[in-house]
Formats: sequence, C-alpha cells, structure tokens
Amino acid sequence: MALSEFNLIARYFKQAQLSNAHTRLGVGDDCAIYNVPQGFELALTMDTMVEGVHFLPGCAPEALGHKLLAVNLSDLASMGAEPSAVLLALTLPAVEEAWLASFAQGLFALAQRYHVDLIGGDTTRGPRTLTLQALGLLPCGQNLRRSAAQPGDVICVTGNLGDAGLGLKIAQGGFASPYADTALTQFYLPEPQVAAGLALRDLAHACIDISDGLVADLWHIADNSAVAAEIYWETLPLSQAVQHYIATTGDWQLPLVAGDDYQLCFTISPEKLVDLNIAYWVIGKVTAGAGVAVYQHGVVQQLNRRGYEHFSA
Amino acid sequence: MALSEFNLIARYFKQAQLSNAHTRLGVGDDCAIYNVPQGFELALTMDTMVEGVHFLPGCAPEALGHKLLAVNLSDLASMGAEPSAVLLALTLPAVEEAWLASFAQGLFALAQRYHVDLIGGDTTRGPRTLTLQALGLLPCGQNLRRSAAQPGDVICVTGNLGDAGLGLKIAQGGFASPYADTALTQFYLPEPQVAAGLALRDLAHACIDISDGLVADLWHIADNSAVAAEIYWETLPLSQAVQHYIATTGDWQLPLVAGDDYQLCFTISPEKLVDLNIAYWVIGKVTAGAGVAVYQHGVVQQLNRRGYEHFSA
Repeated sequence: MALSEFNLIARYFKQAQLSNAHTRLGVGDDCAIYNVPQGFELALTMDTMVEGVHFLPGCAPEALGHKLLAVNLSDLASMGAEPSAVLLALTLPAVEEAWLASFAQGLFALAQRYHVDLIGGDTTRGPRTLTLQALGLLPCGQNLRRSAAQPGDVICVTGNLGDAGLGLKIAQGGFASPYADTALTQFYLPEPQVAAGLALRDLAHACIDISDGLVADLWHIADNSAVAAEIYWETLPLSQAVQHYIATTGDWQLPLVAGDDYQLCFTISPEKLVDLNIAYWVIGKVTAGAGVAVYQHGVVQQLNRRGYEHFSA
Repeated sequence: MALSEFNLIARYFKQAQLSNAHTRLGVGDDCAIYNVPQGFELALTMDTMVEGVHFLPGCAPEALGHKLLAVNLSDLASMGAEPSAVLLALTLPAVEEAWLASFAQGLFALAQRYHVDLIGGDTTRGPRTLTLQALGLLPCGQNLRRSAAQPGDVICVTGNLGDAGLGLKIAQGGFASPYADTALTQFYLPEPQVAAGLALRDLAHACIDISDGLVADLWHIADNSAVAAEIYWETLPLSQAVQHYIATTGDWQLPLVAGDDYQLCFTISPEKLVDLNIAYWVIGKVTAGAGVAVYQHGVVQQLNRRGYEHFSA
C-alpha cells in the first residue's frame, strides 16, 4: 500500500514538538506562520542538491539530510544570522520509507542542535532533487555582506581547507589516503560555522562561506567590494590529510579550488582581530584594485580553474 | 560559450528595481534580507513542479513561470496573507537562454502585479524541477486555517470548478471542446485569489485553496476541524465549458475531483455572508460529524476517487 503525500509529510516531517520560540504554525496547513521578533529582520537562503550532480546515487540518506541543512545553515552563518526555521521540497522517484526515515534523522539531528523547526514544504514525485529554504534572524541593519571588504583588511578563514574536496576524490576512488576518515567526514557531514558567523557579525567587514572553493568565493568578495585580494599559500590551514595528499600528488591547488568545505572566509580590520573569540587563520589581505592573486613562495601563481560552477563549459 | 551559474542568475532573475517596501537585500549575496513590519507575522509556503509529473515536456516556459508563482500565491491567499517576496530554486538540464527569458517573463509579469520581489534562490543542473518559496504578511494572530470550520457554517467557493481539469484533458488530446480556450487558460494560467483571501481574513472561519480537487481539499478542512461537510452538486458554479463537457460525457464528477483550479473554498457563518464584498457561491454546509458527503438530487453519491495525490497507488 502506498502512502499518500499527506501521510508521508505527517509521518516523517511533522515534529512532535516545535523548538523555535517564534514558530507560530508548522507543517500541516497551506502555509506555515513565523513571527519575527521586534528589532530583527529575516535572512533567507535556498539551496538544491540533485542526485548525480551534487551527490551520488546510493549516498547514505542520513548524510544527505545533514548536508542539505548544513549548506543552508552555512549561508545563514556567512551573513551572521541565527538559524530559526526551514522549509523542505523533496522530489523523490518513489516512496522509500527507510530512505525517508534515515534522511529525516540526519536533518533533524542537526536542526535540533540549533533549535531550527521544519515548518513546511512540498513532496513530489520525480528525479531525486532536494531543496531546502532556511530562515535566520538578524538584528535590524546588522549583517555580513560580500560587498563590505575594505583595503587594509586582512583575509581570514575559520578552518582547514580542501578536506571536503579530498573526501570527494577518495569517495570516487581517485585517491587512497591513510587519513581518509577526516576527509570523508568533512565531505559527507560538513559542520556549518554558525557560532563563528554570530561572533563575526559585529567585527568583520565582508564574509562568505566557502562552497565553490576559496578562490572562487573570494572572487565574489573582491568583485562585490570592488577591491583586490591577495592570498599567501603558505598560510592556508591544512589538515594532515590534505598535507599528505599534496605531498603525494603535487596537487597544491586543491585547497584553493576544491568546494564544499563550508568554512567562512571573512575580511576584518587587523586591529579587530584581538576581539575575535573564535578560531581563525589569517591567509591574506585586501588591497585596492581588482581580482584575486595567489602567492606561493612570494610569486603569483596561475590556477587551472577558479572553482566549481554549475553550467560552466 | 556557456553562462556561469552566477551570470545566469544575474541576467534573468536580478530585478532592476525591487518593488516590495520591505525587501532589504535581494539576489546576489549568501542570503536575502527581508524586514517584516511591526504588527505582522510571516506566512511561508513552498511548491514544486516537476517536468513529466506536473507539466509536460515542451510546455511554454512563460506559462510555467506564471503557474509556479500562481500556485504559491494561491497558498498565501488561502491563509489570508498578502504576498511579499519569493525565492526560486531552478533545476535545469542545460542553459537555454530563450527558455530562461520566457520563464522569467511569465514569473515577473505576475509578481509585479502583486509587488512581489524575487529575492534569492539557487540554480542547479539536473532534470527540470521548479521550486518556489513564497512569503506573505499576516497581521499578528489573524489567519485562515484549515482547522477553523464550525458546525452551522456554510461552505463557499470563489469561482468555477473543473475548468483546469478539463483543460488538462483537452491539452492531452482526451477531449475536444468548442470552449477549449476557457479551460486551457484556466489550466495553464490560473489566477491566484489573492484579493479574495484578504477579504476573507476577518470574516471566514476555515479556508483552503483547491489544488487537489474540491472534495480532496474539503476533506482536509473536515479532518482538521473535526467536522463533516455536505456538498450539493446542483449548486457548484460551472463554466459553459464544463457544462458542455458533462453533458457530452456524463462525467459529472469532474468538478468535484479535478485539481489545479486554485479557487478558494471557505466556511463562514451564514450571517457574515452579507459583509463579503467578493464573488462567491454557497455550495454546502458544515455539520457535526466527520467526512465529506456529496449530494446530487438529494441523494448521497459515491465518488470514484477523492482527487489528486502524489505517490498514491
């Protein structure tokens, strides 16, 4: 017996208890209702993951549920917003109850850590396509934009670069590593830098999350802020896994161009660094001009590609 | 030369001018920012349309852009919310600039009529799947829920039933009609009942938009309100097109079970009807009990099916 759409939604995605103080109405009516508290405005983002493009068929549904939410919370973090609620559009080829239960488990485990409610969405039949829309709260007028970098700023990241990209290579059988676990965990179960985003809100200038690759995402900051960015390769924070990969293959560009790390990249006045109570690495500086330059041993390097873009030739 | 994802978004979906007074930041950063005015809360809905399931390959993209937005505005209308902004997740098999231009035209033509801004979203490659998430404003505590019907209410609809279902039959070549234009327009370009939803907010009890079919959607009201609903077939508002179809085929159930009409179905105390300044038809009443009964010539009728449900056997 097939489950109807409505039973499906109710069984797996209707929370027994709402956990966000501002949710007025969750799943089950034509709309959800959310009450933005006075003095705050709403940050909104939406990301899609397509089977065969963003994840491989057969990928563990629990990891997909986690990652779909994580990439959206990462966008909120990069604006300095506090996550509050999400809507989910699930397109699935068939009713697979085990898949749904596992997917929901991965999503809710992460959601509950941030008091994020699933308040609505849609369930349709078709090629597996997962879209999540996330809401977050920002004090009115306070946010971190791509356009706010200033010459004189230093450029920082919140953690290691390249692990997710290495994880993808390992998952696809393209590399064997004694440190596979680190890289695979970073690829399948990225941790959104929510606390860092909140800490940066009052201190940093520009901020972006590294989803397409450090250099590609830094180009967005440079373009939108009408400034230039310099990166010093030797300062990039690299895990043992990525250090081993580079030493073995010579592919030093991985941490610059690999996507999916979901660390934050931000620019900040150097004198504000002492006030930052989060982990960070200074990797470069903002200057007048345009574009992104990567220095290695003091020499500007050419990259094979900027990073990951859909629809690129 | 292929367009990059970012250029794509910018070229077709970045509005030259934002038209909603409360949009703080539109397309182009990690998140959009929306400022909910004091005294209001947010209604949120999200709907997906999948090629081959909700529309046929080759369907005019301008109609798709209209309909994707219309079905979401219809959900807002059924809560009594005023539309304000949307996010769009487009999954497309390839860059087709003509398709994108036409889709955007259909979407923006409807959006501009309601001062709705497109403030964000995502563009990915994959099987054509269109998801839109819509925001609307509700005065705090005022809304129309499925659960608010009361015994003694009359049941009303805001317009003709069955035209979209007939349009689908005609589009698929299953019926030839001298009134094809009416039915096809209703199927491809449904009009969300936004003004009716706003007018009903202070007067009606329960409300739902008819997307799955009158009886199926009325079941949601009956179930959620713990009441019974009686419908009198002779009172259903039917276009000439649907009257001709029923006279020709004998398929009297069409206006009860066909989806996609996007009229509102609401329940209201009969003494409030005089205050309603919108077009409406009284088609039944709410009683104590459970379920939905359809009377024809005073006799309860059995239906072949309730309406359209994804994943149903």
